[in-house]
Order: sequence, then structure tokens, then C-alpha cells
Amino acid sequence: MKVNLFASVDYVNEESLKGSSVVVIDVLRATSVITTAINNGCSEILPVLEIEEALSLKSEKSLLGGERKGLKIEGFDLSNSPLEYTKESVYGKTIVFTTTNGTRAILKSKYADRILVGSMLNAKKLAHKLIEYGDDVSILCAGTGGNFSMDDFICAGKIIYEMNKIKALEKDDFSSLAYISYVNYKDNIFEYLSHANHYNYLLSLGLKEDIEYCFQEDILESIPCFVDGKIVKL
Amino acid sequence: MKVNLFASVDYVNEESLKGSSVVVIDVLRATSVITTAINNGCSEILPVLEIEEALSLKSEKSLLGGERKGLKIEGFDLSNSPLEYTKESVYGKTIVFTTTNGTRAILKSKYADRILVGSMLNAKKLAHKLIEYGDDVSILCAGTGGNFSMDDFICAGKIIYEMNKIKALEKDDFSSLAYISYVNYKDNIFEYLSHANHYNYLLSLGLKEDIEYCFQEDILESIPCFVDGKIVKL
Repeated sequence: MKVNLFASVDYVNEESLKGSSVVVIDVLRATSVITTAINNGCSEILPVLEIEEALSLKSEKSLLGGERKGLKIEGFDLSNSPLEYTKESVYGKTIVFTTTNGTRAILKSKYADRILVGSMLNAKKLAHKLIEYGDDVSILCAGTGGNFSMDDFICAGKIIYEMNKIKALEKDDFSSLAYISYVNYKDNIFEYLSHANHYNYLLSLGLKEDIEYCFQEDILESIPCFVDGKIVKL
Repeated sequence: MKVNLFASVDYVNEESLKGSSVVVIDVLRATSVITTAINNGCSEILPVLEIEEALSLKSEKSLLGGERKGLKIEGFDLSNSPLEYTKESVYGKTIVFTTTNGTRAILKSKYADRILVGSMLNAKKLAHKLIEYGDDVSILCAGTGGNFSMDDFICAGKIIYEMNKIKALEKDDFSSLAYISYVNYKDNIFEYLSHANHYNYLLSLGLKEDIEYCFQEDILESIPCFVDGKIVKL
């Protein structure tokens, strides 16, 4: 069972995703938001690239969520903080969602046989599901502005670590590096994150609580999957 | 002083190299060969992409060196083993050199203000020179077949580590990850390398001695630089 890791959305050869299960990770914060919202009973999430497109999809039954530069978008109902996506707020709702990196990564995965959404919150459950499927796995780290982001990478490492506990994996070098990075820092993730630029940027916006939430491991069981343009619960 | 790291030759935005000092790393083995050859008094190295081009440049004063799939090329004088590039063999000579990854990375750096060749062998000397120049630094890891290669990455980490000892650096996330990877494994590099696919491939070819040579740190003082199509001693 092969695991390949793409370190940023800009490094993906879309064609190479054919025949594999893809996991998309934008741990700070889009895929943590999606995991949380789906876990809290939102009926579907529509990822879109542009703010205008999101606004055009607004209806009575939908909420608009997302960010630009880490901040809430004017006219939107929700920001990109997972703490806002409570059961009270999202249950039974459609969420139209646009973020700088995460939604782009999800939409770029379209050639994959199966597209799952990963975060620290659901990492173990997701790893077990991937082993159950048994297909080769491509992990797509969204990155930040097309650049590599250490926060996504350690989350990928966690998922690989959980898979590797069950089955020996044929890892590419990025997967191996993510794996050993997680092994080395799993008891001290915030020491690792202190080196990450996007983490420090979010801290500077006062989003410490969000970050602490996103780096809780294995607290949710839901696996969001992207099918026919919509993210739903697997 | 900014340091950006490109994790493989395929990830380089060539235009983005303008105005920076570029360090090219293909530690197993092209840039270790180049550092060794230049240190042993070869007068110049001409990196070329194709075997045919190398053969057409063969003359009485030149040697042909390089590899395909890690092996010596038919009709060539030297393989890609740094152990062959002794003073006796290369002093005063022109070497026409073609390898799968390293020469491609060097040639891709053409827009940079300054192109230096890095390896473990000359890492400290190179780091000091980069600090002396004071320009932003782009580190280009050649990778293997366009993919990320852990061996180049730890060498980049060593160079960043030596620079960081002298001056605080503004690192992108790849640079930070390379830095902490080196810090974590500097006393146990071969444990780190055991996860690297290219390292294991070269081991399978029986090239353990080459690898051990390439991972000696700071044993050479020469810095090869690429100017007007030729690699010469700085």
C-alpha cells in the first residue's frame, strides 16, 4: 500500500491522483472546520473558489462561511473558526464555504477515486478507513498561498502514523519525513508549530483558541467526503 | 535575511530566484562530486543535460563524468562516485558532467544572481560565505526524478543550521523543517537517512562507501560556483 504526500496544492499533478484515495488537509483551519461542521450535523458543504460564487449561492437554508487572509468575509454568516460551527448553528444546514487554500485543494482533487477530508480531529478514524479501503493513498496538504505549510504536514504525519500502526506502508520521502516529524513531536506539537509561519500568523490574529481546538487529536469520528461537488458525511 | 527552500527542482519558480544567492544541493551524489572535483583542482566542470551533448564535448583535455540510474554511462571516463574524482584523476582537467537530477537543478538556477554548489562536505564554509554576501538565499534541493528527496533536505538543514548560528534568519516553512530535521538528527544522520528512498536505492547498488563519504561534514573548504555555463572554484 503506497502513500504519497503532496506538500502543497501547487505541487499536485492532478492526473496522478487517479486510482487513489485522496486525503485533503488544511488543518489551520478549513478541514478542521469541515470536519467539525459535518460532525455537528450540517447536511452538506459546497466548497467554492470565489466570494462572488458563494454569495450567488446564498439561500434561506444555507449559511456562508470562510475567510480571506484569515478573517471573516463581509456579508458572510460564519468565519473560518471551527468554534462557530456548533450544532446549534449548522445542524441540517447547507454551508457554502470558501477559503484561500483548503477549498482550492479539495477542488483540485477531482480526479481521485475518493476524496476525504482530514484533520487532527478525525485522524485516527480516517487512517482506519483508508486501511479498510486498501487503495494507494495520496495526501494533499493544502499549504498556504501555494507554499508548503508545516502545520498541514504534521497532520499528514499523524494520519500516516496511525495507518502505519496497522500496516506497513510504502512511503515516498515526503510521507516518511511527515511520519518521523510526527513521531518526534507528537508529545510536543506546539514546539514544532512554533516554527510554522501560518501558525504564527494566526496567533498574531488572536486565534490561539482556534489553533488549540484544531490540534486536538482523535476527538471526532466523522469523515467528510467530497462527492459530486458537495462535501457530505461518509 | 530570508532563506527559502525549494524541495525539488520541479517546484522552482525560476523567476523567483532573481536577486538571490542560490545554493544547489544534490548530496547523493552530484554536488558532492562537484565539490570534490573542484577541491582536487579540476579547472572547470561543464554541466550538460544530455549524454549526446557530453559526448560531443569530449576532447583530449576533458573527462566525461556522470550517471544514469546511478550507474556509469557507457563511453564515459568517470561515474558519479566522488571517490573517483581524485587529484590524480582530475587536476587541471575540464570535466563534462551529466547526471539525472543535479545538473538539471544547476541549469535551472540560471536566473539567480549567484549560483553556488552545496554538499555536506563544504556546508560550513558555504554557510559562512552566504552570510558574508548577505543576500536572500534560495536553497534548491535537486530531488530525485523531480520528487522530493530526504537526503538533499537534511543537507539543506545543515547549511541553514550553520548560517543560523551566525545570524537570525527569516525562514520559510521548508527551511524551518529542514533546520529542525538537521538539529534532531545531526548526531544520527544515518538513522534519518534510513527512511530515504534514494539512499536505500544507492545502498542496493552497493554504494555505501560513496554515501559515507558524501555525509562527512565540513571536510572541504572549496565552494564551486556556476558562472557562464561553467562550474569553477569561487
